[in-house]
Amino acid sequence: MELKLYVDRLSQPSRAILIFCKANGIEFEEVKVEFTKKETFSPEFTEINPMQQVPAIVHGDFKLFESHAILIYLASAFPGVADHWYPADVRKRAKIHSVLFWHHSNLRRGAVGYIFNSAITIISGQPVNLQAAAEGEKLLLESLAKIESYWLQGDGPFLLGNEKPSIADLSLVCEIMQLEAADESERERILGPHKRILKWIEDTKNAIEPYFDEIHSIMPVAREKIKELKAQASKP
Amino acid sequence: MELKLYVDRLSQPSRAILIFCKANGIEFEEVKVEFTKKETFSPEFTEINPMQQVPAIVHGDFKLFESHAILIYLASAFPGVADHWYPADVRKRAKIHSVLFWHHSNLRRGAVGYIFNSAITIISGQPVNLQAAAEGEKLLLESLAKIESYWLQGDGPFLLGNEKPSIADLSLVCEIMQLEAADESERERILGPHKRILKWIEDTKNAIEPYFDEIHSIMPVAREKIKELKAQASKP
Repeated sequence: MELKLYVDRLSQPSRAILIFCKANGIEFEEVKVEFTKKETFSPEFTEINPMQQVPAIVHGDFKLFESHAILIYLASAFPGVADHWYPADVRKRAKIHSVLFWHHSNLRRGAVGYIFNSAITIISGQPVNLQAAAEGEKLLLESLAKIESYWLQGDGPFLLGNEKPSIADLSLVCEIMQLEAADESERERILGPHKRILKWIEDTKNAIEPYFDEIHSIMPVAREKIKELKAQASKP
Repeated sequence: MELKLYVDRLSQPSRAILIFCKANGIEFEEVKVEFTKKETFSPEFTEINPMQQVPAIVHGDFKLFESHAILIYLASAFPGVADHWYPADVRKRAKIHSVLFWHHSNLRRGAVGYIFNSAITIISGQPVNLQAAAEGEKLLLESLAKIESYWLQGDGPFLLGNEKPSIADLSLVCEIMQLEAADESERERILGPHKRILKWIEDTKNAIEPYFDEIHSIMPVAREKIKELKAQASKP
């Protein structure tokens, strides 16, 4: 296969890339690199991504990492990707870049800080870090508020008021779906008050079925595993 | 003037945008929004950037924020910008996106954490936060090591081995130039061991003179002001 995706479905940007390829009929080979088993640190994978993180891709002789750069590349290099994912118009495209860069310093930083430190880390055999999780949660809540009060304030159901999803919707919704790794009560506490965000998640999911649910089917499994590991860790 | 730049020269991404416009003959009006005086929180500026940060631009009826999105927009929307700043080739462009997104989660986060908390904050009348500065410094040092061992490992003098600077060189070098706000000994301690980075800063500066030095002339002034404020704060 000419396009190889080096991914872990437990990683939210990995899921975004898998869903994007499936939704757009882009053929690929999925190469699993499990970060919870520290496979991102292998010499073979470090050759592909020296930053030792998933996702990364190899397309022929071309190597690329950073999930947003990958989504933009896939939307640009493969013919047949509908314009709404990454519009050719310079101003529409600029607005999508604005969301993507904002995401990196805000929603991603908050969500990763919260969910990694409160849940995912336990799969790697590391203890939870409640202080780091609390710092992450603060930025996560601020970011959710900004999504609701600003990015979702347009006429259409998607970010920037668009009628159809872009790569920004896909990336940000996959980020928020990472909260599926938390206890149901925690997810409800954080997302419950954000009705507009809940609707946007549903709209994005519905626009990309069946691939959205297919790739996210790992999340309930991860949640049960995390619960089990936490229960074991709390035994005397 | 059709293009308005809402900037503060004390902000490193603001400087990158000012230098880019000057170097490419893009006419603009500079609108000063001083973040140390909390002018980013004014209702007028919040209309332009609801995230209340500089830089932001207004081009005719088009508003945009996030500095990397702005640099890409300026390079795309204004004719006459040389290709090396933001190449049309999909793969070259993808590599530049990869640097820009990496920057947000690594170098910027580290550099801002370090220099804002150890120095810039004092201009706003806030005390330094040595713990936050130390956390920032750790990520800053890791990021500088990655720039030297990976991003600058190509044949040419610029990032990705390029022969001429791109918007990524401009953005990352302006970030590192923020260390000019620190005491000279601190800057030497952090940057001194990174000979390749020091050469890259010089190469980037030389490629964009006289605009690079013109826009950075605020930095020695800021450093002296910070020294003075620190001396006052340490008086009993």
